[in-house]
Amino acid sequence: MRIIVDAMGGDKAPEEIVAGAIEAINQYDLDITFVGKEALIKPYIKGPEHLLKRVEVVNADEVIDNDESPVKAIRKKKNSSLVIGMNLLKEGKGDAFVSAGSTGALLSGGLFIVGRIEGIERPCLSPLFPNGDRFSMLMDAGANVDCKPLFLYQFAMMGSIYMEKVLKINRPKIGLINIGTEEGKGNKLVGETHDLLKESSLNYIGSVEARNILNNDADILLCDGFVGNVVLKLTEGVMMELMGQIKAELLKTTKGKIGGLLIKDSVKSLKARFDYSEYGGAPLLGLKQPIIKAHGSSDRKAILNAIRQSKLFIDHQVNHLIVKELNKGVKENDV
Amino acid sequence: MRIIVDAMGGDKAPEEIVAGAIEAINQYDLDITFVGKEALIKPYIKGPEHLLKRVEVVNADEVIDNDESPVKAIRKKKNSSLVIGMNLLKEGKGDAFVSAGSTGALLSGGLFIVGRIEGIERPCLSPLFPNGDRFSMLMDAGANVDCKPLFLYQFAMMGSIYMEKVLKINRPKIGLINIGTEEGKGNKLVGETHDLLKESSLNYIGSVEARNILNNDADILLCDGFVGNVVLKLTEGVMMELMGQIKAELLKTTKGKIGGLLIKDSVKSLKARFDYSEYGGAPLLGLKQPIIKAHGSSDRKAILNAIRQSKLFIDHQVNHLIVKELNKGVKENDV
Repeated sequence: MRIIVDAMGGDKAPEEIVAGAIEAINQYDLDITFVGKEALIKPYIKGPEHLLKRVEVVNADEVIDNDESPVKAIRKKKNSSLVIGMNLLKEGKGDAFVSAGSTGALLSGGLFIVGRIEGIERPCLSPLFPNGDRFSMLMDAGANVDCKPLFLYQFAMMGSIYMEKVLKINRPKIGLINIGTEEGKGNKLVGETHDLLKESSLNYIGSVEARNILNNDADILLCDGFVGNVVLKLTEGVMMELMGQIKAELLKTTKGKIGGLLIKDSVKSLKARFDYSEYGGAPLLGLKQPIIKAHGSSDRKAILNAIRQSKLFIDHQVNHLIVKELNKGVKENDV
Repeated sequence: MRIIVDAMGGDKAPEEIVAGAIEAINQYDLDITFVGKEALIKPYIKGPEHLLKRVEVVNADEVIDNDESPVKAIRKKKNSSLVIGMNLLKEGKGDAFVSAGSTGALLSGGLFIVGRIEGIERPCLSPLFPNGDRFSMLMDAGANVDCKPLFLYQFAMMGSIYMEKVLKINRPKIGLINIGTEEGKGNKLVGETHDLLKESSLNYIGSVEARNILNNDADILLCDGFVGNVVLKLTEGVMMELMGQIKAELLKTTKGKIGGLLIKDSVKSLKARFDYSEYGGAPLLGLKQPIIKAHGSSDRKAILNAIRQSKLFIDHQVNHLIVKELNKGVKENDV
């Protein structure tokens, strides 16, 4: 098994990316191809000989930035680590692609270079999201801002397979993000998706109210990519704002300052629970080959986790099972 | 000026509702009509004679609960405090209606009993939302789950007038809730609304990213009612979850427990900033007469604030200015 790694993507590239990937060779018994500026990557490729001989480097002179238009960047920067990496994946020179680079470019590249699984309407960006003391998959977190009910139904189907195989959750529970739990609540998309899911064989548990997104029974939280992205970013924003305001409030009094010092460790341990590096990357489900988007601020631990996820993705033949499920659907309809 | 108050709506009805309204007579020199179960309300109508003579009670034997279907409830419960109150408003027996009851029923009643301002496509639920050290208006917070660009444009227009007149903000800044700030980001609705706003005379400042909803430059945050309701409830949910988890984390260690005691006052003062009662009710903009929705957990202070808002709504002829603005639009189009 060979994982292609975008060595230039993310805030901590290339050092942390390279370090995490070399650790992955050691832990998960796989080969790595780094794509990026060779001169910048090589100094960080360090370790025992038996690991280093499993490493390949493919030079890529360009880097796609986060603020570039994704579609344009993919078209113009043919020599970027992201485009070259995806082309390697497409040509079968690796089994999965991991990148902490621009989400938009990764999605565009996934669509235009790697391509969709036949029968899948849209690929889905599917990060794991803190939910009480565990994690649920948020689908879609921003790949498709305008969705049809069938898209959401397919996200749920793909997410069920992924959660069952990669995260070992039996019959993953699917919840629809909504503005209430009563029947009939929600917009047109939610209503029609509800009807589709109710009739399906998926383990649909109904609506999850926005108030309970951080604490509910669902393993998969379903919504369109606009709402999903708002959920993802607003949650981060509220946490940062609240933490900041607590800090500011504590600094106003001596009592608060002392209290602040005493609670420091506890708050740190809480922050870790919401830390992306703890739960690795987000798969782009629905593409012909596995692509994992690691968080932009990924350190070596996050990259290690993202590679672990891509290994499980391959080991458990998630894409093969998605195709099988699609064909089952076709046969049922043919009867 | 006479304000009609739903004495039965909200978790703390009727005691706190009645107390807040009587305080409003004292502070704002107005008359109050309470609607609700007379026998339950009367014991709480207390105060000096010169205030009490400005109080009327209209009996209403039924109450609409939060978990009832709004449209059905409005149709069936003709003797509910909400329906009778709205009918009084419609008949001109009061100048505004304030209720802490079911948001859905209030919206349905607003539409079917009081009716829309001619030319306004949809009424908008417009609560004030914490934004840094001040408040912004969230439009729409849940009245219209499926919106067209024109609806959002009209919300912005109505909100601008309200913020300018009632909250004394000069040329309120309008931001569009979005998943990025770059041109071209967002879904179809956001894109088309962006075009409408850019061409308008409103003070449109572009997109506000979901991450910054609690800390941004806009006075009015614009979105469809589905997204708005998700924003409102998710923010509450994340805060509650985070506060709960901080508490649980602190209780794990002695150091944490002592720290927790020391920060208690600071956290309380922070909570107050996010407290609904501090900033009163949400106007339902776009209806023929002023209706203010007070938060379900309103205490006397929140009711006092909501009544103050309805007084300013009337004093500054917000609805008259909305009609004027609509007519200006028509004339411009006629040219």
